[in-house]
Amino acid sequence: MSSELTRVSTLEQLRRLEASPLFQGSVIAIIILSALTIGANTYSLPPLFTNILGLLDNAITIFFLVEILFRFSVHADKKRFLLDGWNLFDTLVVIGSLVPLDNSEVVLLGRLLRVFRVLRLVSVVPELRFLINSLLKAIPRMGYIALLMFIIFYIYAAMGSMFFADIDETLWGDVAIAMLTLFRVATFEDWTDVMYATMDTYPLSWLYYLTFIFLTAFVFLNMMIGAILEVMSEEQNAKNAQQAHDEREKLTRQLADVQEQLAELNKLIRTRKND
Amino acid sequence: MSSELTRVSTLEQLRRLEASPLFQGSVIAIIILSALTIGANTYSLPPLFTNILGLLDNAITIFFLVEILFRFSVHADKKRFLLDGWNLFDTLVVIGSLVPLDNSEVVLLGRLLRVFRVLRLVSVVPELRFLINSLLKAIPRMGYIALLMFIIFYIYAAMGSMFFADIDETLWGDVAIAMLTLFRVATFEDWTDVMYATMDTYPLSWLYYLTFIFLTAFVFLNMMIGAILEVMSEEQNAKNAQQAHDEREKLTRQLADVQEQLAELNKLIRTRKND
Amino acid sequence: MSSELTRVSTLEQLRRLEASPLFQGSVIAIIILSALTIGANTYSLPPLFTNILGLLDNAITIFFLVEILFRFSVHADKKRFLLDGWNLFDTLVVIGSLVPLDNSEVVLLGRLLRVFRVLRLVSVVPELRFLINSLLKAIPRMGYIALLMFIIFYIYAAMGSMFFADIDETLWGDVAIAMLTLFRVATFEDWTDVMYATMDTYPLSWLYYLTFIFLTAFVFLNMMIGAILEVMSEEQNAKNAQQAHDEREKLTRQLADVQEQLAELNKLIRTRKND
Amino acid sequence: MSSELTRVSTLEQLRRLEASPLFQGSVIAIIILSALTIGANTYSLPPLFTNILGLLDNAITIFFLVEILFRFSVHADKKRFLLDGWNLFDTLVVIGSLVPLDNSEVVLLGRLLRVFRVLRLVSVVPELRFLINSLLKAIPRMGYIALLMFIIFYIYAAMGSMFFADIDETLWGDVAIAMLTLFRVATFEDWTDVMYATMDTYPLSWLYYLTFIFLTAFVFLNMMIGAILEVMSEEQNAKNAQQAHDEREKLTRQLADVQEQLAELNKLIRTRKND
Repeated sequence: MSSELTRVSTLEQLRRLEASPLFQGSVIAIIILSALTIGANTYSLPPLFTNILGLLDNAITIFFLVEILFRFSVHADKKRFLLDGWNLFDTLVVIGSLVPLDNSEVVLLGRLLRVFRVLRLVSVVPELRFLINSLLKAIPRMGYIALLMFIIFYIYAAMGSMFFADIDETLWGDVAIAMLTLFRVATFEDWTDVMYATMDTYPLSWLYYLTFIFLTAFVFLNMMIGAILEVMSEEQNAKNAQQAHDEREKLTRQLADVQEQLAELNKLIRTRKND
Repeated sequence: MSSELTRVSTLEQLRRLEASPLFQGSVIAIIILSALTIGANTYSLPPLFTNILGLLDNAITIFFLVEILFRFSVHADKKRFLLDGWNLFDTLVVIGSLVPLDNSEVVLLGRLLRVFRVLRLVSVVPELRFLINSLLKAIPRMGYIALLMFIIFYIYAAMGSMFFADIDETLWGDVAIAMLTLFRVATFEDWTDVMYATMDTYPLSWLYYLTFIFLTAFVFLNMMIGAILEVMSEEQNAKNAQQAHDEREKLTRQLADVQEQLAELNKLIRTRKND
Repeated sequence: MSSELTRVSTLEQLRRLEASPLFQGSVIAIIILSALTIGANTYSLPPLFTNILGLLDNAITIFFLVEILFRFSVHADKKRFLLDGWNLFDTLVVIGSLVPLDNSEVVLLGRLLRVFRVLRLVSVVPELRFLINSLLKAIPRMGYIALLMFIIFYIYAAMGSMFFADIDETLWGDVAIAMLTLFRVATFEDWTDVMYATMDTYPLSWLYYLTFIFLTAFVFLNMMIGAILEVMSEEQNAKNAQQAHDEREKLTRQLADVQEQLAELNKLIRTRKND
Repeated sequence: MSSELTRVSTLEQLRRLEASPLFQGSVIAIIILSALTIGANTYSLPPLFTNILGLLDNAITIFFLVEILFRFSVHADKKRFLLDGWNLFDTLVVIGSLVPLDNSEVVLLGRLLRVFRVLRLVSVVPELRFLINSLLKAIPRMGYIALLMFIIFYIYAAMGSMFFADIDETLWGDVAIAMLTLFRVATFEDWTDVMYATMDTYPLSWLYYLTFIFLTAFVFLNMMIGAILEVMSEEQNAKNAQQAHDEREKLTRQLADVQEQLAELNKLIRTRKND
């Protein structure tokens, strides 16, 4: 029983350790160190440095593995631990970066997967996690606008590819390339060069570009306004409205009390009259 | 009479079929298939594929024709069916895509008209139809701003064409080309190249470009702010305001009741006094 | 006396004519015709057309002159007519376009001044006049932000001209040219070309460009947000707030009435008690 | 004692002088003159002018030194004077511009430090000081968004440098250069040139650019919306809400009074009943 108690208290102590700012801070420090090694690897370094970075990378990989296993073993509800999106994300990133860097065949894959370790910063810092969650919530409300945008792009790309493919194969070759070219036009990136090239053959093709730019800009603008309004109608004034509601609620209760008292008074006077 | 009943019930069954998610879903699927064949046509394909696509296109054309006729025949009020903008749009798109693709003379027109079949996605998916309707509602409020923008463009284009036509005929040749050039300047697309060319002759012509950019940006910014505000003043707070109004309404009714009760009490006491 | 009466009624009739939609409409039509002749002049036309346009221009000039004189003579208060900004603007534009086009020395000035006749559309169409007035109202609130922007531009231009003048005289020659170059950078127009050129000499000069872009973008963003908020705090919710205020006002009056009635009741009962 | 009094009144007079619009105005005038001499120095001028500018610069430097010392000696609380950020800023700028221009070794540093004298305009004009303070307040709320942006840039830069370094060393050489290139892509500055170059080797690399553009634009958009909302929730409706709250408060007090009166009435009637 004493041993049982000791085990429980050890677990409790480990949990307290896991939640401590020191532990969180050192994890964040190691993630930043990991990001720095990834960045350092993009420079051409003397062999000595490369070796040190390799050793450091191994140490970081082991640290992350131990950290995940530690957090898993300490967590009370193992099932809920795995169902939490952020833990799953952490686990996948750590497993992904187990790909060795020594094997030359998968070295690029290994380095690529190590890059995502920087993303663990998002899962570890609560404010960033909150930010990402609120960004994810903003996606669905843009769904149908995105579909509409895609339809506009597809129709213009099909038309562009139909008419302009012979003018410039690399810009209008097929509907996919044409969509990429239209995205370029939508970002105003050298779009006049594209237009002037087609205007030599079709002098009226400026109509195609101008209507496309106006359509996408108009839909985008409305999307932005819509997004601002939708977020507002949810959050905006919610506090003020709640306070106003509460105060009116109180007024209503007071009035109901007044009505009751009056009714009582009425009854009292009536009964006295009948006395 | 039994036959009459059967006919009615058949019509009813057909109507239920038309409104069923299965029917709507298959129409959407065919529209997407139609979009894919249009996209596939922009790639250079082996003859076999081209033939298959041709057959598929015929099948889709016939399907759309049958679908429109079916929806028309099933609809209760034939006149209202034709007056509805979306049905008219659907009908025109389907009729337009009846232009044959085999005849080489009109093949480009036929393919162009087939592109608009993708737009049927908008008329079939209710959410997209709702989105388009709300976008169309946003147009009139931008009318006078657009007119003002056009006047600014026209005046600057006339001036530009007057002074800069001799410097670059392709950019400032006449008022129409100059407006296109100014639109390019407004999108910041290589606008300094245009400016540096005219500054060689007129060193102060940067004033022309800067005032133009500031004017259009200023008017555009105000248009955007205006659009946001106009939409807000309509929708924003409408719910909160309604709730607050309803609650105050209730308070007023309660108070009126209190006043009535008090008046009654007053009368009662007065009558007893006179007793 | 009869002649006096006739004169008065003639003036009244002329005033009614001036305010009639027909008169306003024909003025607008002539302004648009004037705009079209200005546009047509930018094309190279056969001599016959040029002559017709010349005659048309004379006719329009005379029409505008007569119209202004007519509106002035018909107006009740001559002094207020001249003090009104829009009338003054109209008069100046009409006087300005009296410069003859035949005299080759001032032909460009004459044509330039005629361009501004298009602006009369703004002074004649009430909706556009209203729009311009509301845009003008938006200028002062941007004053200090514009001054701050100018200070940022000036400091960066002075620094740029100090360090980069030897690298590219045409971009950084003096503080004025450097400000133009910085405006180009602020519009993202080939700004990397400018940066890469200076990075060859000063490898850290990307800091100069990035801080400049962030500063101007940050100030601009805050200006936009400020503008939106300022307009909002004025207009937004004004109607709802007024309604809510009125309804609460009503509640207060009702309550005051209740209090009065209660006080009366109290007095009544007290007097009876003392009976 | 008389001498003491005279001293006090002299100090008082000096303080009144320091606060006078004339003194403030002349300081602003000298700052603008200083800005003009800095601007003039970027032009190539005849030696006479350069000498005059040199003398002027010395005079301005002395004026600023005297002004700061004067303001310091006149200020009541010497310690608070130095702790105020704007005074510290002024002092540093003035001390910094004491670096002589004659010594050719530090001439560039001296001229650079003199540029910052223009910033004294911000510290002297109260409206600009207020503007800067409100801009500084806006920075912390953008902190975590900026961190998220940095993480996105870092991950994409690491990936870009990994894959594209062999394609273009000057654009993707290491993670720092790649971040600069990505900033260029984010400003849409010739981003398609960068993309087309990598698409020759990796045909799917458009996915890299498009996801990057969408991610940064999406985060930026949300940051903007967030900024607008945050500022709003602070300032917006605060006045209306306060008024509504005050009026409801008044209603509540009135009702409480009514309840009290009723309770009194009730007691009165009850006591009479028991009489």
